[in-house]
Amino acid sequence: MRNIKLVIQYDGTNFAGWQRQKDGVRTVQGVLEDALSLACRQEVKVEGSSRTDAGVHAFGLCASMLLPDDGIPTDKIPKATNDILAFDKLEGIGDIKIVSATEMPEGFHARHSAKGKRYIYRIYNCEEKSPFRRSQFYQVAKPLDLERMRKACEYIKGTHDFKCFETSSNSPRETTVRTIFELDVLKNAVSDKAFQYTVVVEGDGFLYNMVRIIVGTLVEIGLGKMEPENVKAIIESKDRGNAGHTAPPQGLYLDEVFY
Amino acid sequence: MRNIKLVIQYDGTNFAGWQRQKDGVRTVQGVLEDALSLACRQEVKVEGSSRTDAGVHAFGLCASMLLPDDGIPTDKIPKATNDILAFDKLEGIGDIKIVSATEMPEGFHARHSAKGKRYIYRIYNCEEKSPFRRSQFYQVAKPLDLERMRKACEYIKGTHDFKCFETSSNSPRETTVRTIFELDVLKNAVSDKAFQYTVVVEGDGFLYNMVRIIVGTLVEIGLGKMEPENVKAIIESKDRGNAGHTAPPQGLYLDEVFY
Repeated sequence: MRNIKLVIQYDGTNFAGWQRQKDGVRTVQGVLEDALSLACRQEVKVEGSSRTDAGVHAFGLCASMLLPDDGIPTDKIPKATNDILAFDKLEGIGDIKIVSATEMPEGFHARHSAKGKRYIYRIYNCEEKSPFRRSQFYQVAKPLDLERMRKACEYIKGTHDFKCFETSSNSPRETTVRTIFELDVLKNAVSDKAFQYTVVVEGDGFLYNMVRIIVGTLVEIGLGKMEPENVKAIIESKDRGNAGHTAPPQGLYLDEVFY
Repeated sequence: MRNIKLVIQYDGTNFAGWQRQKDGVRTVQGVLEDALSLACRQEVKVEGSSRTDAGVHAFGLCASMLLPDDGIPTDKIPKATNDILAFDKLEGIGDIKIVSATEMPEGFHARHSAKGKRYIYRIYNCEEKSPFRRSQFYQVAKPLDLERMRKACEYIKGTHDFKCFETSSNSPRETTVRTIFELDVLKNAVSDKAFQYTVVVEGDGFLYNMVRIIVGTLVEIGLGKMEPENVKAIIESKDRGNAGHTAPPQGLYLDEVFY
């Protein structure tokens, strides 16, 4: 058997998230498995590195799958599958794309083998909202203060119990301690009235909604509703109620998974 | 009565075009009229400057409407309506936005009073297609030659019978002669492997699919499949079969209407 790692991009707008659900619900895993099964001429199941929510995007989600040694060569899988994904028939409208397929050693698993992930969160900061950015940005109308947001990042980086940044869920986890390797906010001018803020965050793992709650907290700090210095106490409180709001899904992109 | 001119932006991806159709078909005019009727607390009908096709966008389509002198003040209409358009209830998901509302003299009509229009057409030229650009660009994989495309523009500018650039339709028109005031192609680097081409075209009026057929012809010239010098003969032939393909709708934006 071949153990194949796929790197996948998708625009999450028209998906009810990654995880396959009952028939009739359009999910990334569902559409991808159907297309792969057609391309590989046999039923294919994939394991994803992450279960992104509805509306969340990916530049580089990873998935692993097992395939017999005979059949379609590994390097032909992306194009063969992408051709199917761009057809309307399968409800494939070109919003998922396989970037690469690589054979991995036995035992590699997209989720269990992951050592870390990088997410990107994009904010469009402009008094005027744009219909063209609604699916790919969090549109914030009032001005954000970059320096305040950056200062807050310093309190979040490192190894902490991040219970305050988790939406309570029944998802199994042994601990709510995680390590954030990197967290920064970049600002680019789109015009003289509009700015794009890009939050980049790398960590060894993330709790449910953790990136979106970190971003919601950074936005409230950027708007002057919370103080950067309070972040330390918020984390120590381990109380979700003390952190900021959960930023909406459409600004979030799973950028890369590290192995 | 007030005669009001609205300037409207929309992402055409999730609309079956501008023109109101039977119930259950989501159109820009339909969603807009429903939202305006709620905001103005009475039934409102709008006349659009243009009937854009499914998937076509607008940065500045104009619409006119009549409203009694009492009721909501003209300058309050955009915000009141946009708030409704951003709600899910009305299938408003923020993909239409009223940019401005201005009172015009009696007799002003968004379509009949128009003296000209500017369209923008956006091409993403990259070997790798992107799921994130599929709704807002024509993605062309092979390299385009800017100078060839620009040379072809020179043959199209001016007053000509543009029958060759029209999809035959039953739409009423007295003549297929139109004047193109301006036609140019701009190129910007998105990365070292990806370029955005922007076709800008201004004219006194456009035949059905005219901009998309001009762009399809320019793309074939940019790819080396047709020669710029042939455009003169193509126009003179008045034969649609001699021109290039019809470029897809998602790259097209009605940019501005001139009065």
